[in-house]
Parts: sequence; C-alpha cells; structure tokens
Amino acid sequence: MKTYINPNSEEWSELAKRKTVPTADLNETVKVIFNDIQKNGDKSVSKYTSIFDGVTIADFKVSNEEIQNANKLVSEDLKNAIQTAADNITKFHYSQKEIPTKIETTAGVFCWRENRAIDTIGIYIPGGTAPLFSTVLMLAIPAKIAGCKNIILCSPPDKNGQINPAILSAAKLTGVTEIFKIGGIQAIAALTFGTETIPKVSKIFGPGNQYVTAAKQYAQQLGIAIDLPAGPSELLVIADATCDADFVASDLLSQAEHGEDSQVILVTNSEEIVSKVVLAIETQKTVLPRKSTVEKALQNSRALVFKDIQTAIEFSNFYAPEHLILAIKDAENKIDLIQNAGSVFIGNYSCESAGDYASGTNHTLPTNGYAKSYSGVSLDSFVKKITFQKLTSQGIQNLGPAIEIMAAAEQLDAHKNAVSIRLKKLQNG
Amino acid sequence: MKTYINPNSEEWSELAKRKTVPTADLNETVKVIFNDIQKNGDKSVSKYTSIFDGVTIADFKVSNEEIQNANKLVSEDLKNAIQTAADNITKFHYSQKEIPTKIETTAGVFCWRENRAIDTIGIYIPGGTAPLFSTVLMLAIPAKIAGCKNIILCSPPDKNGQINPAILSAAKLTGVTEIFKIGGIQAIAALTFGTETIPKVSKIFGPGNQYVTAAKQYAQQLGIAIDLPAGPSELLVIADATCDADFVASDLLSQAEHGEDSQVILVTNSEEIVSKVVLAIETQKTVLPRKSTVEKALQNSRALVFKDIQTAIEFSNFYAPEHLILAIKDAENKIDLIQNAGSVFIGNYSCESAGDYASGTNHTLPTNGYAKSYSGVSLDSFVKKITFQKLTSQGIQNLGPAIEIMAAAEQLDAHKNAVSIRLKKLQNG
Repeated sequence: MKTYINPNSEEWSELAKRKTVPTADLNETVKVIFNDIQKNGDKSVSKYTSIFDGVTIADFKVSNEEIQNANKLVSEDLKNAIQTAADNITKFHYSQKEIPTKIETTAGVFCWRENRAIDTIGIYIPGGTAPLFSTVLMLAIPAKIAGCKNIILCSPPDKNGQINPAILSAAKLTGVTEIFKIGGIQAIAALTFGTETIPKVSKIFGPGNQYVTAAKQYAQQLGIAIDLPAGPSELLVIADATCDADFVASDLLSQAEHGEDSQVILVTNSEEIVSKVVLAIETQKTVLPRKSTVEKALQNSRALVFKDIQTAIEFSNFYAPEHLILAIKDAENKIDLIQNAGSVFIGNYSCESAGDYASGTNHTLPTNGYAKSYSGVSLDSFVKKITFQKLTSQGIQNLGPAIEIMAAAEQLDAHKNAVSIRLKKLQNG
Repeated sequence: MKTYINPNSEEWSELAKRKTVPTADLNETVKVIFNDIQKNGDKSVSKYTSIFDGVTIADFKVSNEEIQNANKLVSEDLKNAIQTAADNITKFHYSQKEIPTKIETTAGVFCWRENRAIDTIGIYIPGGTAPLFSTVLMLAIPAKIAGCKNIILCSPPDKNGQINPAILSAAKLTGVTEIFKIGGIQAIAALTFGTETIPKVSKIFGPGNQYVTAAKQYAQQLGIAIDLPAGPSELLVIADATCDADFVASDLLSQAEHGEDSQVILVTNSEEIVSKVVLAIETQKTVLPRKSTVEKALQNSRALVFKDIQTAIEFSNFYAPEHLILAIKDAENKIDLIQNAGSVFIGNYSCESAGDYASGTNHTLPTNGYAKSYSGVSLDSFVKKITFQKLTSQGIQNLGPAIEIMAAAEQLDAHKNAVSIRLKKLQNG
C-alpha cells in the first residue's frame, strides 16, 4: 500500500486514477455475435453456448422441477439468512415508493408525475465458482416491488449444464419469471433482440466480465437501457483516531478480494493510522483463501494522509468512490459534506459487507468515478416517471397567451395555432 | 395520412416503426474531433468553429456585457411570457424534491437516501433561425433547483459570432453560470474533456442535430452521463367522438412542424373522426410558414382505427409515444391504463404546446419507443441519490450472523471476516 503524505491538489487527478481495463478490442466480437443471434435466434445461442461454456444445452429454460430440486440443495441456514436479507432489501426499496403530488401551476393547469413499471427487464448473473445469489436479491426484489411483469434472469451454465442452486433458490424466492441457462455476450444479445424462447427486454441489469460489459454497452447503443456503466469495484475509507484499525483493515481486504482490479483507498489524518492498518492487513490476509487476488488488488491501493479530515472528505468527493466508509469521530454529522459516493457507511460498525448483503441498501452502485453523475440501482431504476397534465378551459385561457408569444418567438406557428384555435372557440362558445 | 382499419396485432410492430436515421457513419468524424480537442483544447475548438460555423471567434465566452445587451433586445411581452413559463416550471420541478426517509430495517440498522446535485453540467442549445430558449428553461431551471454549482451552456454562434438574444436572456434569468459560443461535435467534445476556457462537465443535456447526437453518444461511452438517447419528436393522439377534430388537427400539425422526420399518429375508434381530422389538417396547414416541413412529416404519419378505445390504448402502450394526447371521454379515469409514454395530455384543452412551453412539465422526453424504459428529464436528472447506512453495535450483532452465512456461501471470506472481527470484539468487550 503506497502512502502519500499531504499530496497537493495538482496530484489528486493522478491519485484518483483507476486502473483502466481496455475493452475496445471486443467490439468486433460483440457485433458479430449480436448480428448472428438477431438473425438466427436460439440456434446461434446454442452455438455460442457450446463454444464459450463448453456445454450443449437442449433447453435453455430452467424448469420448475430444476428449481424445486435446487431449492432442496440449499441449506436451511443459508435460506434463513437470504430471507433476512430479502426482508431488509424489501423494506428499504419499498420505502422508495412515491405518492404522486398533483400541483396547480396556474389556475386550471394541473401537473403531476406517476410511476409505471418497466414491463420486461433482464437480469444477468455471472457464473463461476462463487454463486452471486445476493445480486439476484438486489435486482429482482426492487423489480417485483416496482411491478415489472416479466423478470428474465440469464446466467451461464456450468460444465454440467446447471446453474448454481443458491441462484435458482434466490430467483424462486424473489419471483423471477423465467430463468435461462445462457451467459456472456450471447445472453445480452438474446435479451436485446429476443429469440424463439428468450423474451426481448427493455432494460438489462447486472454485473459481468469484460465480455458482458462490452455487450451491455453495445445493447445500450441499440436502444436497450442498462443499469449502470461498469467498472471494477472500489472502496474508500476515511479514518481518524476514533477508528479501529482492525476493522478498517478487514473492510479494505473485503474489497480487495473482489478481483485483482479492485481498488482500495485509505484516507486519514494520521500516519500512525496507516501503519496500524497496514500491520492489521498483513495479519488478517494470511488466512484468506483469496490471498493472491487480495495481494494483487493491494498493489493498486493507496494510503493518503491529509492535514485534516475536511481535506480527506474533499479528496473523497474528488475521487467519487463506489463505497465510502466514514470511520471518523461524529461521522453522522459530517455527511452533509459528502457530495459524490455510491453508498456511505457510517461509523465503526457499518462494514461494507452489510450493504453488500443484508442491511437493505442496494449493492449495484456506480464505480470508476461515475458517482459524480450516476445513482446506484434503486426502485427508480425499474420504473419510468410519466408526467401528466390537464388544462381546464380556464387553464388554457390563463396560460394560452404566454404560450402563443413563446411559440411565435421560436417560429413554431403550428404550436401557436394549437393554442389560438382553442382560445378562439372558447371566445366564440 | 395513411389510414389502417383494425390492424391486427401482428401488424403492430410495423405500424409502430419509426423512420430510422442512420448515424453510424459519423462515428469516425466524431472520434477525430474528440481526439483533436482532447489534445489541443481551445485551439482546436477555434479551428472547428471556423470550419463548421464559418466564423472566427476570439473569445468563446459570452461576456456579461453581451448578456445585458441581449436582454435589452428581447421584448417585454416575451420576457413576461418567459417569466410565466419559468414560474410554472419552477413550481413543478420544485415539487419533485424529496425528503429523506430514514428507516430501521433491522433493530440497530438504519438506511436512507439523500440527494446531491451533480456539481457541473453542460446544456447544449442548438442554433439555427429558431432560438430554442424554451429548452434553456427546461434544463437550467431544474439544474438550479437541484443545486448544480456550474451550469455551462454551449450554443453555436451565427455568422456574426452571436447567440440569439432570447437564449442569452433566458440563460441569465435561469442562472446559467457560463455561456460559450460553440456548437456541434466540438462543443460536446469540449464539455467532455474540458479545455483552457471550457469546464469539463459530468453530464450533458440538450437536443441537437445528428452530429450532436453522435457526439453525445460517444461522450457517453467515455463515461459522461447524458440526459436521454435521441430520436425525432413524435405525438400520438387517442381520440373518440368527444374530441374536437380542429383541436386534434392543430396538435398533429404542431408536432409535424418540428421536422421532416417528426412522426404523428392518430388512433381512434371511428373512421369518421379520421376524415374530419384529415380535412381539418388540410384547412389549417395552408397558412403555416413551415408547410413544406409539415407535409413531409405527414408522409410518415398514420391514422389507425380500432374497434374500441381500450385497444387504442393498448396500441399506444405498444408504440410508447413521447407525447400522448387523450382526447377521449372520461380521459382522466383512463390514465391507469397508460403504461408507456413520455408525457400525457388529458382532455381537449391540454394541447402539447402547453407542455412544450409553459405548463410546468419538462419537454425533454423519451422518443423512439424509449418511453418503455426511460423517463423524461426531471429534477432527478440533476441529482445522484446516495444511500447511507449506520449500524449500531446492536445492529451488527443482530444482522452479522446472516451476513457471515451469505458471504461464506459466495466464497467471499474477507467479507465474512469484516463482520466476524467486529462481532468478536463486541463479545470480548
């Protein structure tokens, strides 16, 4: 962990840099597979599944029987833990429901917004040895609360043509509509165009490797909405003398184990804290199964020592971390200063793992500095907010003249006429 | 206006098609200009301004003096109309402010969201003969309410190196921070990277021609957020026997005058209404200055007659129009059936022009069927919603065991350890 003492603001850009992962070279591959699947549907999905996943699948759709069997394979302990998390995620996302407020902007002119669910959405869950059932909860629960009718889940099959039981169990619990055993670019292409068996969706959610990321970006260019631009996961911890160095080390390590490209940053007002945290990292990491991943991630990590916590927060806003832990005195009273972050964890007992799994907040968050302009996934991500307006005859009479003047000034005479013709009839009526 | 009687659902896809505007061939041009401006800053902005706008600009930044002079050139009538519109837009967008709701998901686990403004945003206003000052209102007013610190406006200079006075006046009224006389791809590139004089922004808003559209799409790939994917403007009117054919015709014409690629669709339950509206269009269009544009747009337009209004609404949801007028009996009681639309205008006196200018709703809306997954611009577009959480010692003790089980099942041992180490210290403390 490289340490920087009082870096001046000219150095901040360099210190806030993320490791760039080049994806441009995948664009051609993505285009070829998309075109093929648009043209040949399921047949091509099969082809790419056997090429990339090394398995021949007769029927992509996971059957009810498979789901029921999978459910039996998940331990009661895990099911109970998932239920606890699901309850909290439900409570928090349910609290994001909005009640429409109708306002009268001018006498007789009523305006309001109402939410409507996106009808059909796709959720991508990566494969691999670790089954990311927590992401199923984070995406399917708000989709269900929003009222999405079709929640389509795709996840790559393993060598035996199966999806991990914990993923299927979480999908069943959360009310996913259909589950398909397909992954990678071919899954995103199938959700983009629809095939004989896989429905076309309007928005695609979920994490993935560089292939999935490139495919989602391409789908977006074709008009399919996506949850967020992708980037490696990251954590910034602001710590002062009130922190517990063991806790801070454990949080930095939990972020580092996500992948070699994960980035962890410690920002503090004391060199002593850096020493303590580095020591605690050394001790704790020895027993971690993902030690080699952690060590590689730590190579991208930094410790910054500033003269005070105020400057530390300024740097954090400049960096715009996905996850931000405030292990500082009186943390809750400082949150007004936080401008850019995906999700903020306040105080010594709010570890990032809590938000990753079970506190109720969503773990799909803006990385790579996108927290400057993007929000994490929430109930909003699954709805459109439609504006409604109603003008009474009094309303158009009150507001019409202003509209006529503005439309004329923009040289849009037909716009003006749509008002004039109404005013004239009202006058004559 | 081509008329279709009772088209069956297999034909709907064809009937819902938009005229496609190819933009792919611009990608190379966009890339070249972006690279040049990233490297050479203002010098390149100057170069492209003289190439594309045919004018040499010494100082891109509009001075306070220029703004004050422009303000004097705008008539009092127009200023008053703009003020009326601004008041309504302010009221409606102010009503979108949210009060954070803190909830306790598990005893000792507190979660909530707070809004933070996007610090620096860019607004693009197209040039041309018609000055789109209304778009300045629609973008700068919510930006100001949200609390954006830097609101940067770019608009192309005319042959005399000027921006239309009405645009400058609206920018002054709404509190735009800086105004630059640059347009096209070079403006979007400058906002993406920043130059010596033009600030880098986090999100770019506003309409534009195909060059601006392609440039915004490229900026998005580089990590700059944009308001909405672009597409030609469109209107769908659902009308029954209670409609006024003259009003419907005036609305369809107001949409048609936007551009040759605008699309207008009339959906009704009666052939007689189609005849009446077509007749009214013929009469009204003769006096319109933009008659030739209107006629070209009407070539893309359609009239669909369905057996009942229920089916008409189903088609509308399938089409997902940017603007939807409900000129039907008991319209307000039918809005629960509306699933996909940008903005909905209820009843005979709610003309689209009202929402375009002055009722208070935003006129930056999803086109091209994007209303299935995107919302129009609102206060939300100018903020990020950051999640916050605080676990007390009791909170981590209550929730910790569930997190440990889930993290272990996802094989993320460091995530588990971040909880275990806290539980252990609490046990021993």
